[in-house]
Amino acid sequence: MNRDPRYDILFQPMKIGPVTAKNRFYQVPHCNGMGHQHPQAHAAMRGMKAEGGWAVVSTEECEIHWTGDISPYIEARLWDDHDIPHNAMMCEAVHRHGALAAIELTHNGPSSSNLTSREALIGPRHEPASYHPWQARRMDRADIRDYRRWHRDAALRAKQAGFDIVYVYAGHDLSLAMHFLQKRRNDRSDEYGGSLENRVRLFRELIEDVKDAVGDRCGVAVRFAVEEMMGNYGITSEGEGREVVEMLAELPDLWDVNVSNWKYDSMTSRFAEEGFQEKYIAFVKKLTSKPVVGVGRYTSADHMVKLIKSGVLDFIGAARPSIADPFLPRKIEEGRIEDIRECIGCNICVTGDHLITPIRCTQNPTMGEEWRKEWHPEVIAPRASESSVLIVGAGPAGLEAARALGQRGYDVHLAEATTEPGGRVNAESALPGLGAWGRVRDYRLFQIGKMPNVTLYRDSRLSAAEIRDFGFEHVVLATGATWRKDGVGRSHAYAIAGFETAAVFSPDDIMAGRMPARGPVALYDDDNFYMGGVLAEKLRQAGLEVTLVTVADVASSWSANTLEVVHINKRLRKLGIGIVTAKDIERYHDGELHLGCVYGGAGSILPAAAVVSVTARLPNENLWFELNDDQPSLVAAGIKSVTRIGDCLAPGLIAQAVYDGHRYAQSFDRPKSDAVPFRRAMPLVTVP
Amino acid sequence: MNRDPRYDILFQPMKIGPVTAKNRFYQVPHCNGMGHQHPQAHAAMRGMKAEGGWAVVSTEECEIHWTGDISPYIEARLWDDHDIPHNAMMCEAVHRHGALAAIELTHNGPSSSNLTSREALIGPRHEPASYHPWQARRMDRADIRDYRRWHRDAALRAKQAGFDIVYVYAGHDLSLAMHFLQKRRNDRSDEYGGSLENRVRLFRELIEDVKDAVGDRCGVAVRFAVEEMMGNYGITSEGEGREVVEMLAELPDLWDVNVSNWKYDSMTSRFAEEGFQEKYIAFVKKLTSKPVVGVGRYTSADHMVKLIKSGVLDFIGAARPSIADPFLPRKIEEGRIEDIRECIGCNICVTGDHLITPIRCTQNPTMGEEWRKEWHPEVIAPRASESSVLIVGAGPAGLEAARALGQRGYDVHLAEATTEPGGRVNAESALPGLGAWGRVRDYRLFQIGKMPNVTLYRDSRLSAAEIRDFGFEHVVLATGATWRKDGVGRSHAYAIAGFETAAVFSPDDIMAGRMPARGPVALYDDDNFYMGGVLAEKLRQAGLEVTLVTVADVASSWSANTLEVVHINKRLRKLGIGIVTAKDIERYHDGELHLGCVYGGAGSILPAAAVVSVTARLPNENLWFELNDDQPSLVAAGIKSVTRIGDCLAPGLIAQAVYDGHRYAQSFDRPKSDAVPFRRAMPLVTVP
Repeated sequence: MNRDPRYDILFQPMKIGPVTAKNRFYQVPHCNGMGHQHPQAHAAMRGMKAEGGWAVVSTEECEIHWTGDISPYIEARLWDDHDIPHNAMMCEAVHRHGALAAIELTHNGPSSSNLTSREALIGPRHEPASYHPWQARRMDRADIRDYRRWHRDAALRAKQAGFDIVYVYAGHDLSLAMHFLQKRRNDRSDEYGGSLENRVRLFRELIEDVKDAVGDRCGVAVRFAVEEMMGNYGITSEGEGREVVEMLAELPDLWDVNVSNWKYDSMTSRFAEEGFQEKYIAFVKKLTSKPVVGVGRYTSADHMVKLIKSGVLDFIGAARPSIADPFLPRKIEEGRIEDIRECIGCNICVTGDHLITPIRCTQNPTMGEEWRKEWHPEVIAPRASESSVLIVGAGPAGLEAARALGQRGYDVHLAEATTEPGGRVNAESALPGLGAWGRVRDYRLFQIGKMPNVTLYRDSRLSAAEIRDFGFEHVVLATGATWRKDGVGRSHAYAIAGFETAAVFSPDDIMAGRMPARGPVALYDDDNFYMGGVLAEKLRQAGLEVTLVTVADVASSWSANTLEVVHINKRLRKLGIGIVTAKDIERYHDGELHLGCVYGGAGSILPAAAVVSVTARLPNENLWFELNDDQPSLVAAGIKSVTRIGDCLAPGLIAQAVYDGHRYAQSFDRPKSDAVPFRRAMPLVTVP
Repeated sequence: MNRDPRYDILFQPMKIGPVTAKNRFYQVPHCNGMGHQHPQAHAAMRGMKAEGGWAVVSTEECEIHWTGDISPYIEARLWDDHDIPHNAMMCEAVHRHGALAAIELTHNGPSSSNLTSREALIGPRHEPASYHPWQARRMDRADIRDYRRWHRDAALRAKQAGFDIVYVYAGHDLSLAMHFLQKRRNDRSDEYGGSLENRVRLFRELIEDVKDAVGDRCGVAVRFAVEEMMGNYGITSEGEGREVVEMLAELPDLWDVNVSNWKYDSMTSRFAEEGFQEKYIAFVKKLTSKPVVGVGRYTSADHMVKLIKSGVLDFIGAARPSIADPFLPRKIEEGRIEDIRECIGCNICVTGDHLITPIRCTQNPTMGEEWRKEWHPEVIAPRASESSVLIVGAGPAGLEAARALGQRGYDVHLAEATTEPGGRVNAESALPGLGAWGRVRDYRLFQIGKMPNVTLYRDSRLSAAEIRDFGFEHVVLATGATWRKDGVGRSHAYAIAGFETAAVFSPDDIMAGRMPARGPVALYDDDNFYMGGVLAEKLRQAGLEVTLVTVADVASSWSANTLEVVHINKRLRKLGIGIVTAKDIERYHDGELHLGCVYGGAGSILPAAAVVSVTARLPNENLWFELNDDQPSLVAAGIKSVTRIGDCLAPGLIAQAVYDGHRYAQSFDRPKSDAVPFRRAMPLVTVP
């Protein structure tokens, strides 16, 4: 197929200083939990974006110097020449596909930790470190000279590594260039403080330094947060954010603009729509002739065209959409926009950075596995046999297993008990704010629909006998899991006393519309990711009085890893939902929950006409036992394997279910082994 | 010197199965934030313990298999043969000094994350992961067989790497062997569940497997938590903990026993005395003829003797005391017990593991730097010149700089403004529970006292003119920092409205005994480590009504990294201290703090006759400016350098001040350089 001419504008080349981007798809810098510790995996992941058609592929933050180490977070490093080969690997992988490689140089000042280097932090003034109980010291003129030299040296190393675009970073409230800009942090009385002209001086000098050092061959970009979402306490797009763009308008070769901090820049779909940053950044292009890139979780090619034609952006910036589908540009170019695996905006990708482990993605199970397992988001090994596979259950694991096995060419039969394939994705995407999660189902159903070798059976609940009767060689059980109603979970090994007499509802009940008839409702969240909070929202929307109870110190605590915990807690309060933290249930009795303080403080009593219990799930594994407990019948039926995948094996994230389905398909017809099933980057061993 | 004969018993060899420990000093397994990622640094750190006289030196937890990956925490790994060289490096370093190397094999089951391997977690039953919103699956018989094989294979790899002692780990509520023991987690109806005999089966089999695999050459140890500090919900030392020891009494070659979980095993000095575990573990030796090791932050040689003579322990186990002083055994052996650098029980060492960065120690600034910087806890390069040094301020930085420069042989003059050297250590060690912190001062004062080339001047507050008049070539300013009283800190860039009219007290005030005359007192903690909580204690002890206010979700939140957050929060409540979390001060007005919810919920008003503000510090840097602003006088005085160290440079932890003082001494007379000032372990770079 060929691309639709209305998308031609997306494929016009554009100059960025001395280099030229082949099209308008621009992978902006994004963290990934691999960085300097997993250099091969990182290079392969970036290379995959280039292969998928992105004209520019950027690193994450790159530490320019050990005095700004942001460990334990694993970002890029260019501390000295030893770091050049790791970064060169990425450049080579990106260049192989005709894309430009960009690097985001940064020194994070008081937002660093220096847990590795053990140096004193530096900043515009004496002030506490952002995340630790120690302080940064005020930089003097000599420190500023040092810092500029380090930054310039890092730019030279970046050029040596092969980068085409070098960033000066003033975003996310994370870098010294931004910290000097902020009047709340900069109380200096020298030429770097006071007026905005003075506060912007360091940013300006860094841009000039980098242009001078590498501008002959590299484009010099800036990443600048024009709006901090905190009114006049911060930079605003109508105030100093705009003024800074005016002052530096023609100085850099490219403006990459966004809002700050990270939790606002990378809002989940639960809290922001596609293009939510436009109102803040739209002014930039009016003030500069240089190309402008911005982000907004864009996956619609038509919207991208509109952004360029209406003069909002020159480049369509993307982090998350490029993670969910590294081949998004190629698919538009090849006239296959229906094949785009659209980002669902869940921020599971972000959890890799927070948890200091390699990035993963709900939609794209190959993300992070490009080198480790040699997985490719679009290409998979053809079938190795004529085997037939029956998959029971068309939730996220079953759908992905069917899709990927189908892509390999196997004869696949996917039996769904209900009339609507999707499993938990159907239920969860109907919850407040989670509509975009339905894309997990939609992408896979569409792909399966095109495959003649994959048959989907709706309304087909199968018994063990029926499974045997079908006679397919391999059986995959993807039957999901069911939420418990007895309170057993992380905090309670045994059923909670009194729950047997209470009106207890599980998440499955609420999602299926089996709602408490009346309140007050006590929602006990012992899971502490999104489910408890979003169910509280749904109950409240239904007019019920709701109180969320958790042993954690904050509601939905694990969602700190998806940048959502503040947004969730604000929303819950805005909706009038009660929140009780650091308390656990001692018992339910006669319409009341008796709560104890996890720190031994005073207990309390919470009236609860109904209880919603969000604690743990049990796999739907009856078929597994029925089939395996009768081995003779299995053999007689010619069934060679029965395998559980997804929640039916171990209830977890939707991302884990999709991954598990994909892994089943990748491993199918391959020999089993005790060997570590992925490559690792190992530290060099030398004589100590 | 020779050792005191009353300590002879500590130096009697003892057999551990087929191997023999040369004395009774036993470094039990402890985490260190280096593990598989920093193998050279790890090996050198362990080797230093061996050099210091420990008869047995253990690893931290060692993951036996990728299905139990505990990333992001950096522990040892023996996933496959590729991991053998890293571990062999440690064995060689330990053997070089005649010590035995021990390894703690573990599979953490539901306490793992599998963030790296992306495998489904495994456990005795279907249950939530300990730390993440996904679940472990119930192991079936085939899984248990696999697990035993993995464990046995890891033991064989451990032997191949050169370990002398191989552990089976059932401690800290972290390993599968322990999870199967716990009746609350084990609801199985097969031969691995039900009776204690059944629940202990897996632990027994693992011991038997390891003995069978490597028992010919290696001692087989167990690490077992006899008490979980949760009554009958857990294992108790009077109940099943005791029964397990009875059942397996003679099976392992050594019993390493403790309490669980980690926050109870490694209690800080603020919450537990030396030897606090004795009452729980004392029974063990009565039930077995095998050697028994236990821990209790032991630093007193006399108490160690008593423990052995009274039949409580055979080996003096130590993690933290061996970190604070790797040479503790040698110092006892050489009759230098006064030279022991005693652990202060602050758990800064533990923060390395929690923050996924290399271990450090308040008392021992060389900890973690043995390979990175070639620092040695007892040996330092001799002086390279005849230079004289004036150090202004005898706090932790100044004392350590003086001690280490004195050790190098320089002519050192240490001027202390007050009559009592110690600086902040004096003030802080007088706070409730922090008495042991005084050891930071005591160790250094004692060492300095022995050095003829170091002169300590008490009651000697120096002016810039006086410093110049002294005419020493190098001046070090270690004048500390002063807590602010205006509320400026992490949450407030500007002074808090109304504080100028309020009775505001700083931590310095409270520590100096300048207490509010009456309550209620509102303590605003924007630092969130120990200071806010411990000052609240002190105020409450003085009979004042106190409420702690913080924007964090829990009081003293950063102390999660020192395993103290639960202990602190329990104590605060027990003392009747009010706690207001997730609120910030909007203003002080007329005896009241107006508080706003950080999540946009309802505000509140807190009566406050006095406010204690724990937010940030300012360095005492007047001398720095006075000296530097008059360069001609500096030159005329023959002063070649003026340097700030410790809090005077950047206020931070006591550990950081000690480190900074030590670094000054190590770097003295060495050329300055822009190069990265430490060695790094870099991942191998291969063609992607």
